[in-house]
Amino acid sequence: MQVYLDNNATTKVDEKVFEEMTPFFCEMYGNPNSLHSVGSATHPKIAEAFDYLYEGINADDEDDIIITANATEANNWVVKSVWLDRILDGEKNHIITSEVEHPAITAACNYLEKKGVDITYLTVNEEGVLEADAVADAIREDTALVSVMWANNETGKLFPIKEIGAICKEKGVLFHSDATQAIGKVKVDVQDAGVDMISFSAHKFHGPKGVGGLYIKKGVQLSPYMHGGEQMDGRRAGTLDVASIVGMGKAMQLATNTMALAYEINHVGMLRDKLEKAILKIPDTIVIGDTKNRTPNTTLISIKGVEGEAMLWDLNKNGISASTGSACASEDLEANPVMNAFGSDSELAHTGIRFSLSRFNTEEQIDYAIEKIKEAVERLRSISSSYAYTPKNHVSELEHN
Amino acid sequence: MQVYLDNNATTKVDEKVFEEMTPFFCEMYGNPNSLHSVGSATHPKIAEAFDYLYEGINADDEDDIIITANATEANNWVVKSVWLDRILDGEKNHIITSEVEHPAITAACNYLEKKGVDITYLTVNEEGVLEADAVADAIREDTALVSVMWANNETGKLFPIKEIGAICKEKGVLFHSDATQAIGKVKVDVQDAGVDMISFSAHKFHGPKGVGGLYIKKGVQLSPYMHGGEQMDGRRAGTLDVASIVGMGKAMQLATNTMALAYEINHVGMLRDKLEKAILKIPDTIVIGDTKNRTPNTTLISIKGVEGEAMLWDLNKNGISASTGSACASEDLEANPVMNAFGSDSELAHTGIRFSLSRFNTEEQIDYAIEKIKEAVERLRSISSSYAYTPKNHVSELEHN
Repeated sequence: MQVYLDNNATTKVDEKVFEEMTPFFCEMYGNPNSLHSVGSATHPKIAEAFDYLYEGINADDEDDIIITANATEANNWVVKSVWLDRILDGEKNHIITSEVEHPAITAACNYLEKKGVDITYLTVNEEGVLEADAVADAIREDTALVSVMWANNETGKLFPIKEIGAICKEKGVLFHSDATQAIGKVKVDVQDAGVDMISFSAHKFHGPKGVGGLYIKKGVQLSPYMHGGEQMDGRRAGTLDVASIVGMGKAMQLATNTMALAYEINHVGMLRDKLEKAILKIPDTIVIGDTKNRTPNTTLISIKGVEGEAMLWDLNKNGISASTGSACASEDLEANPVMNAFGSDSELAHTGIRFSLSRFNTEEQIDYAIEKIKEAVERLRSISSSYAYTPKNHVSELEHN
Repeated sequence: MQVYLDNNATTKVDEKVFEEMTPFFCEMYGNPNSLHSVGSATHPKIAEAFDYLYEGINADDEDDIIITANATEANNWVVKSVWLDRILDGEKNHIITSEVEHPAITAACNYLEKKGVDITYLTVNEEGVLEADAVADAIREDTALVSVMWANNETGKLFPIKEIGAICKEKGVLFHSDATQAIGKVKVDVQDAGVDMISFSAHKFHGPKGVGGLYIKKGVQLSPYMHGGEQMDGRRAGTLDVASIVGMGKAMQLATNTMALAYEINHVGMLRDKLEKAILKIPDTIVIGDTKNRTPNTTLISIKGVEGEAMLWDLNKNGISASTGSACASEDLEANPVMNAFGSDSELAHTGIRFSLSRFNTEEQIDYAIEKIKEAVERLRSISSSYAYTPKNHVSELEHN
């Protein structure tokens, strides 16, 4: 059985999404900016896609949603254009973010630090949450931007975006949130939350890879990151990727339709809880971060005596896909920065396994995964040099050493 | 009959390309950076795609080809990272480019001018070509970059890249070429040409929109434009868009395979010549730029007394898609910058019509297009207030006024 539990890394494109995209490769292939009907034939479906995007995040008609290659582009755009507009060419010199942001934010901030920008990386508390008060305390006269993720990719923990939004508004500081891990999992309402900008990627909610967006509230000034043609009202140049835009729109509709969302959250959340509870019955296992206020699809679990990488390989052999952390960092085997941020000891930081579900997972799959996870833990602990393994009716091998 | 003659704006995705892409949406949807087999299952086809890309432009194994969203991103990356690396943080302060570059280069350079960078925009000669000597003369001690397109999008004129490459090498200046309009139309050999970097977009050679690349010669230093994960050896972050990469690879293979290319160039060039000759038989028509050393698919024609926009609409009604210039500028009706660069008078600048063919055009289509173009010219001249229209056996209406 194949059980894909790595949906925070990327998701399957929904067949309904792919169906909507298909005509725009070989048939309706015009450039939307062309003046002929091969170009303009693409306009109705593009308009429909934008309607779904605006509805999906409850953007106002006068706000902008700008299509990007992905959230990485959107995040780089925000951080670097704020730097160029308000720091290099302005009076500000300070950006506030958290230690547990996606690398697209932290690496961009690291880069700006080398350019002389003052960056505050706020830590999360023992529950894995960034506290709004910490943001309020960090804001200075010269703060140009606060960038805090909506939901953490590792733990699924939701950050207090609405409270931070209110603080930033009161203090007159630009507020950006990377909502990549939130959209399609929890309600993202940009007006209610009071954010100035949010980033997202379609491939995290069953849309195609290679397309994402930056929501920009009406009136927010931000220099373009891609100069060139007049696409996107001059805010982002480059030939419109029609198939991907149409696909992202459809994916947004499917992911945020109220009925669908309620159902999926219940369904997905129920399966996640079932999986999590079963794993927690294994001794010496804990969930990282507390279990309240999370995206319903995610659990990050530490299993004492089990190396994350070893566990992944064991599960993979049995058709189960999971992760030790962000796929963006998976190729290097550094300890997970999110786990580090919790102040966990180094051993714990190497043992986190993330399971992230989707609406395509079934109860049968979860039952199978539970069985295989238990077997893997048993096997790996039996060969662990650090874990005192005590199989039934046997004395621990470690006690003999 | 539908006749698509706007292939310099964008192209139809080849069915063979789409076929290669298809499995990577709903089936093989893993993140290539993941450690499980759903992720690694994508690796063979990604590797194959890179082989096609390297072969297609004759890159050395030690050179880098970095996947981007499109040539616009690649162009912005080059111009702005050279600025940040070598001007803002270095001793240089000068960039050389041409007046007829794609807006992704000129708009990025305009932006840098506001930041205090000295930009030289070289003009083209009366044949529509940038002369290598002009580049040599413009290079200064503080020149950080020369960026010159390989082939012009409007006229198809090929620029003396190899000569400019030799000049830049001798003077120790970084040389970038936007090869977007050259790949798949003429041989692009990065080693033979001596370029440091080239940009390209898949959708100009029957690949998908939303994906392109930046070739970077071994040893060339260039700060990333997208910070974040370790994808592309840390040179460009963001989840790999597997379907698009596989599609671009296949499109490159189909477009640059020696046999295919020779055939297509003959076929496409023959059809372009037939179309061009037929139009030139209409009185008061000229080809903009001389007709030597062009991409074989492109002709830019000025038809006296005929407004470009009016001509487009007339042709469009008859199923023929053409352009008055770059689609990136089509929505605003400014005079075409390329035509302006030729120093043509304002009337001429408003009358350029670009026909750009592809390997999918047939002789039957071209015969049909010729007929409809003749009809349109006759009709539009008959209602022109500026053109002395003399239908057979009739005295010009203008002479009576």
